[in-house]
Amino acid sequence: MIIKKISDAAAKAVQMDGAKNVSVRVIFGPDDKAPTFAMRIFEVDGGGHTPYHSHPFEHEVMILSGDVTVVTDKGPRPLKAGDMILVMPNEQHQFKNLSETQKASFMCIVPIAYQK
Amino acid sequence: MIIKKISDAAAKAVQMDGAKNVSVRVIFGPDDKAPTFAMRIFEVDGGGHTPYHSHPFEHEVMILSGDVTVVTDKGPRPLKAGDMILVMPNEQHQFKNLSETQKASFMCIVPIAYQK
Repeated sequence: MIIKKISDAAAKAVQMDGAKNVSVRVIFGPDDKAPTFAMRIFEVDGGGHTPYHSHPFEHEVMILSGDVTVVTDKGPRPLKAGDMILVMPNEQHQFKNLSETQKASFMCIVPIAYQK
Repeated sequence: MIIKKISDAAAKAVQMDGAKNVSVRVIFGPDDKAPTFAMRIFEVDGGGHTPYHSHPFEHEVMILSGDVTVVTDKGPRPLKAGDMILVMPNEQHQFKNLSETQKASFMCIVPIAYQK
């Protein structure tokens, strides 16, 4: 059994094209021998966002803090802390921090094969 | 894409032997066609707990609220809201609400094959 608080996992800047002011902490991943899925926490500074993209695997997300929207191919959908989102494989999506000054954060889980 | 808040999923009493004052909401599971893993929220009333047991699959957990401990085969380990726990396959575990009066809650993710 492994117990972590968020600060136990290092924050690394997300370097993907289209990402701005985002860092990720891999809470449980390959280094922890997580068998099936990886738990990550994303932190988005003011004005930041993840890439607008899709990929052949799903996300399950919980919004932890901040004023966040998820952009889809049908437009943005508002979110609140505590909301949970299932992004299906190959669905376009982008998580955006709507505040220019306040941080936002969310948990995002992926199949372990896709956690590098 | 599916967006839910916690009250969108019905709470069902956990009927397993050894469970007391616990209910579960399946946020994303087979009914949502979640491909790889299921997201559930457990709510534990005062004095309640999940069974002390093990099973051949992992949990990834985040404590959301309350005064919770996880009991292991080496004894109890204290937890705080925001703590995250990887319970490995076949590890004994039990989540206990240490308060007799206040509720506690946690998210628990499992491989989809084990979400009935």
